[in-house]
This record gives sequence, structure tokens and C-alpha cells, in this order.
Amino acid sequence: MSLSKQARSIATSPTLALNEKARILRARGEPVIHLGIGEPKNPTPINAILSSSAQLRIGDVKYSRVDGTPSLKKAIIRYTEEHYGRVVAPENIIVTTGAKQSIFNILYTLLNPQDEVVLLAPYWVSYPEMVKMCYAVPVVVTPEDGSFYQRMSDIEQAVSSYTKAIIINSPNNPSGVMYRVDFIAELVAYCERKGIYLIMDDIYHKLVFDHKPWTPGYQHTQKDIENSHIIVVNGISKAYGMTGFRIGWVIAPRKLVDVMINVQSQMTSNPATLLQSAAEGALTGQQGVIENLRLTIENNRNVVLNELKAFNDLKIVPPDGTFYVMPDFRAYGNDSVKLADFLLEKALVVTVPGRDFGMEGYLRLSFAGSVKDLTEGVERMRWALDPTAPNEIYIGDRKLIRDWM
Amino acid sequence: MSLSKQARSIATSPTLALNEKARILRARGEPVIHLGIGEPKNPTPINAILSSSAQLRIGDVKYSRVDGTPSLKKAIIRYTEEHYGRVVAPENIIVTTGAKQSIFNILYTLLNPQDEVVLLAPYWVSYPEMVKMCYAVPVVVTPEDGSFYQRMSDIEQAVSSYTKAIIINSPNNPSGVMYRVDFIAELVAYCERKGIYLIMDDIYHKLVFDHKPWTPGYQHTQKDIENSHIIVVNGISKAYGMTGFRIGWVIAPRKLVDVMINVQSQMTSNPATLLQSAAEGALTGQQGVIENLRLTIENNRNVVLNELKAFNDLKIVPPDGTFYVMPDFRAYGNDSVKLADFLLEKALVVTVPGRDFGMEGYLRLSFAGSVKDLTEGVERMRWALDPTAPNEIYIGDRKLIRDWM
Repeated sequence: MSLSKQARSIATSPTLALNEKARILRARGEPVIHLGIGEPKNPTPINAILSSSAQLRIGDVKYSRVDGTPSLKKAIIRYTEEHYGRVVAPENIIVTTGAKQSIFNILYTLLNPQDEVVLLAPYWVSYPEMVKMCYAVPVVVTPEDGSFYQRMSDIEQAVSSYTKAIIINSPNNPSGVMYRVDFIAELVAYCERKGIYLIMDDIYHKLVFDHKPWTPGYQHTQKDIENSHIIVVNGISKAYGMTGFRIGWVIAPRKLVDVMINVQSQMTSNPATLLQSAAEGALTGQQGVIENLRLTIENNRNVVLNELKAFNDLKIVPPDGTFYVMPDFRAYGNDSVKLADFLLEKALVVTVPGRDFGMEGYLRLSFAGSVKDLTEGVERMRWALDPTAPNEIYIGDRKLIRDWM
Repeated sequence: MSLSKQARSIATSPTLALNEKARILRARGEPVIHLGIGEPKNPTPINAILSSSAQLRIGDVKYSRVDGTPSLKKAIIRYTEEHYGRVVAPENIIVTTGAKQSIFNILYTLLNPQDEVVLLAPYWVSYPEMVKMCYAVPVVVTPEDGSFYQRMSDIEQAVSSYTKAIIINSPNNPSGVMYRVDFIAELVAYCERKGIYLIMDDIYHKLVFDHKPWTPGYQHTQKDIENSHIIVVNGISKAYGMTGFRIGWVIAPRKLVDVMINVQSQMTSNPATLLQSAAEGALTGQQGVIENLRLTIENNRNVVLNELKAFNDLKIVPPDGTFYVMPDFRAYGNDSVKLADFLLEKALVVTVPGRDFGMEGYLRLSFAGSVKDLTEGVERMRWALDPTAPNEIYIGDRKLIRDWM
């Protein structure tokens, strides 16, 4: 079978592969704990349910504008004014089928083959794959060992005449860290000066802990939207826990949005009208749902950090936000894929190998789930890996004995 | 601003550009008649409303499998068995965000840069753009003047060693014709023999008139799904009038589906769960909605053909299905874009220029709308173009006089 070389080279999402293994184990009745998925457990916010139900009841769910309904754009304009301090025009916005499509579309719209995009490790798994799908080249900047923070000088060294864009995700999936304000300021100034697009994936900006302030990139530029090189990505999936609704958006200069609309019109056309109604409901409805979710997640963060302390040889950078933590597991093995497989097999715990985020030897744990799963999950991991842990454990009804060390 | 050359070269969808002009005219209070959009007016089928409402009410709308929920796949398997006479496995199916994404994903998964895809004119506007978006080359086979049917010998001449696929859409958007069974049989045999993928866009297969039988491509091959070069695209948008729900699917060999899942996982991830529930409701619910829609559309087809007869110099191939007819307007002007602009300006009627479908001098009219719009729309067009028509007309409250001929 002769398929596209490029398509065949796309990595299967590591989360998907692990989900499938976990699904098979669960189907056999095994008590798998899933610390892999970045998905809050909260129910759909009531205002999202009401607005989409109302549209469903009328039964008028037809094609809409490719770039988003005017009323959802209005809600996004208000959101942007409130959280970013900028008043943007409807022509600066394109609504997409999830923030994932936002990023894919931005990259497709920016990149010629052989162009380069600078990524900061650890990065979201999809960034390098998306760059490669546009026949362009991901260039990864890795921080000093033990740190999740890049130095501006290393980024400058990674930039070449082919560099079209830099992607930054703060708070960061998978590490949970939020980059320092002075770093963001320097990065924005650098990109504006060099004419390099700075794609700011702000999907986790409402999920920040310890009252730390999150500041938008726009704060560090004097340029207006049309002349700035900042491109903002956001959406409803994480802040409202509306992962299944697949609505994201981009804020960018209108010349870029115009081309993105053409790209989207050929790939998927309009984001589903019903889901846009739901997104509008979430954005204009009661905003307490975000703070409730944030508090739950912050509590989960505290729980998981406390549990992880019991490990003897783990290095941990405490997350500032998101629902991920990515400890350094190299004391227990250098191959993160093998380690994740081992943990699933022995302890029935799903984690995601750091290799896929550009950080070999680390594992990403999601704390979006329940406190019970977190405590039990970490306890099982410790039993499987840490020789100082008790060598007996109950997993489900079975008493297991560690006999491999 | 430096953007991707490829992205900048993507044509704005002609329908979108016309919609925008029409929207502005309407906003001014002008009584625009829209014969441009391929969208039935029926309300959402009740079973689709019920199944998605039920999911909304529970408020559990989260990520699902990238390739589609198992229960929707079950419904698609039954649909395929009933309409295609083939029992396929869940692994032969990928559910997509609309049939548009199905085709984009297939092309991305098949094509290396410089590969060629053979298109039969008139073709759906998006095919050549999608092929170009994959850095591949669309090769158009144009039928003899006055016909919408290609000869197999012309197709064979268009095929080169770079040809990876042929796309066929029957019944055809924009012409409304259904290709003859013997032609399909010959095309299938040719593709199977040559190892060329035959992408069969069957989105209109339930909207066929005059009791003509539609036959699936599988009928003409002995090969099983895994070894066949047939790739089937279908969805709920047209048959159920569920355009806004954006759910389509592909039936293909599993090796191809496996790669398509990776591609989709990086572009948009799972089709929205709520919309998959709606699609499942439509597919498993009361199927009378399709026949009701088909009868309405068949009646509309009869009305529009009857109205078009009044034109003196129009050449028409009566549509076998879909909700489009594409008369040859060359007696009134060779430039279809100018002609469509003229009709919108003078008669306030939206049509789509044939140029965008690879047939200059033709206009596509959609008869998915109301009988009133069809009769009045064609009357206005005749007034604007045909010197034998009365030179006075009422458009809205205004009496207009034709003073340009």
C-alpha cells in the first residue's frame, strides 16, 4: 500500500496508544487508574447546556460562517478585552474546531516547506508533528538539566533565517510551569524586533495556582494587533472542562485571519453551530465554574505533590498551573516509554512518557481526576518503583507482592 | 506579512464570497433570493435531537476516541451493510468532522508532493484546492462540450505514473448527474487493475430521483475491503439535512484508516461527541425523514426544470439527484463570474459561477430551498438575461424595468 511518506511518519499520539492499552485492560476487569488524560471531570456548565439545548429544540442547525458566528465572536471580544486588555475586531478572530485546529491552521497558514518553528521543551506532543505535517522543521530548545525554563540566549541561538515562528505554552503542558513575566517580555520584544511570529497557546491561562498572576503577551508590546507578531490561541476545553465540545479560537492580524478562513473553509468548513452556541453559553454565563474547577485542580495539585514526596529519588518542579506534573524519574530508569509500560503492566497506572514531550526520563502525570485515583495511583507507582516502599499492595481485590527488586 | 505561499494561493470559496455579498445586500433590506447554498431547509430529525439532548442533559461531554465512538461506528456498519452490501469492521471506519474533512484527510494520507489526482469536471470546488493543499497536482478531465459525462479513454489518457487517486462524486455536485453504472463498473475495474485509489464521494447517494437505482462501487469489484482501492466517503449532512452537525465518515482498508487516525489526531482530534450522538440518532432513528426530504427535493427539481424551460437559449442536462442543476448560460455570456455578479446586482439572485467547478459559461443553481424562491428566482434571472422575457418585474415592492438590452 503506497501512502504519503509524510502521513505515515506522523507519530501515533502517545496518549491514544496508552488509552487503548488501558481500555483493553479495563475491559478485562482490571482496576486501571488513568493519570494520562488531561481532562477535568466537571459536568458541562449549565449555561452551555442551556444555550445549545435551546438551539437543538428549534431544530435549526445549519451551515454557519466559516470563521464563527457573530454572537460567539462578540463573546470572544469581551473575553479578550477582560483577560488580555485589548479590544479586537471580529475580523481578528477565527473560531476553530478546537484549539488543536487553531494551531494546525496557524502553522499551515504561516509555513513554507523547510521553514523552521522553534519549540521550547518540554512541549505539547502535537507541536512537532503539526510542524512536520506542513513540511516544515521543528527546532527544539532544551533547558538546562533539571529545569523547565529556557534561557533567551539559547532561543536566540536556535533562531535562523528560516525561523518563521516560536510556540510558547504558558502555563505549560506537560510541565505545569508558568514562564516568568520578564522572560515573556523579553521573548515578545525579541519576536517583534525580528519579525518572528510568537504563537501563544494560552489554553491553560485560567488554571493558575497560588494567586500567581498570569499576564498576556500583548502587555509587552506597543504594537497594535494588525502590526504585532503575537498570535493568541485559546478555547473552552480546559477552563470550562468542555473538552468534548471542540471549540477554540485565534486572535491575529486580519491579513492572517483572512488566509486562515480560506484554509479552514477547505479543511472542515464552519465549526459546528451547536457547539458554538454551547461555547457562547459558557463564555457569557456564570463564570464561577472556572474558579470552582481551578480550586478543585489546585487541591489535586497539593495532594499529588504531597503523595509524590514519599518517593525517595524523584525530582519535582511544582506546577504553577494546568493539571499536569512531570517528575524526573531517571533514578528509576532512563527510558520513559519502558517505564510507562512497566507501570501500566505492574501497577495498572497510566502515565505518559516524557520522551514524547522532548524530555526523556520524565513521566507526565495528570491530576485532573479524583483525589482517590491520585493517592492510590501514586501509591501503586511507588510500590512498583521505589525499593523503600512496602513490597505488598492491594490492587483491587488482589494482594500483590513486588518480586522484581 | 510573510505567509505560506501555498496557503495564500487557496481560493476563497466562491459560495462564501457570494454569501457575504448577499448578506450585505440583505442587511440593507434587499429581497435577495439565494440559489447558491446546498442546504435543505428541513428541521433536524427528531431522533438526532433526542439522542444529543439526552447526552447534553447528563452533562458528560468529554474527549472520545479520535476515530469515532463505537456506537456510531456500529450504526455506520449497519448503514454500509444496507446500502453498500458489505460488512465492514470498525477498523475500516473513521468518523470525521464532516465529509469535507474525510476527503481532506484521505488526500493528505495518500499524497506525496507532486503526486497527481484525477478530477472529473464539473467537480466539487474543494477537490482541486484540497489536492493543492497537499502540495500535489489536480489533473482535470473535461467532458465533451455539452455533456457532463467523461469517456473512460479520456480518463486513461489523464492518468500518469504520478496518479495516486481519482475522485468521483455521483450523483454529482454541481451537475446533479449520476454516472452510468457501466461507466462506474469500468472505472472501478480500471482503478483496481492499476492500483489507483478511487475516492467515491457518495454524499448525495440517497437523493436520487425518478426511481433510478444508485449502485455502490463495491458492486463492481471482487476484492475485499482490505485489498480494494475503493475509498468511500459519506455523511449525514445531505441525506438528513444535518449540515450544521459536521459528521462524515470514510470506509477504507484498515492500513489507510490507521494513518488517517494519526492525521486526524493532530489536526482536530475526535469529532465532537455530542454531534456523534446526533448522527447516531439520525442513522438509527426513523428513516422516513430521508424519503420526505428526497420527495421535496424531487418536486423542487421538477419546478425548477419547468421554470427554466421559459428561457430561450439555455441548455440543460436534467439532474438525476442532488439539489443542483447547472445550465449552460453561454448564450448569455461566457464569463460565469461576471454573469453571477450581474444576476446578484440586477436581479438580487445568488447563483454560483461554473468556473469554480471547472465549467466556464455555466451557473450552478441550488434547488434545496423553497418553491417560491425557485420560481421567483428563475423569473428574475430570465428578466435580467432573456430579451424575450417581459421587461418589467416586481422585485420586492419595487417595479424594475430592464434597460440594458
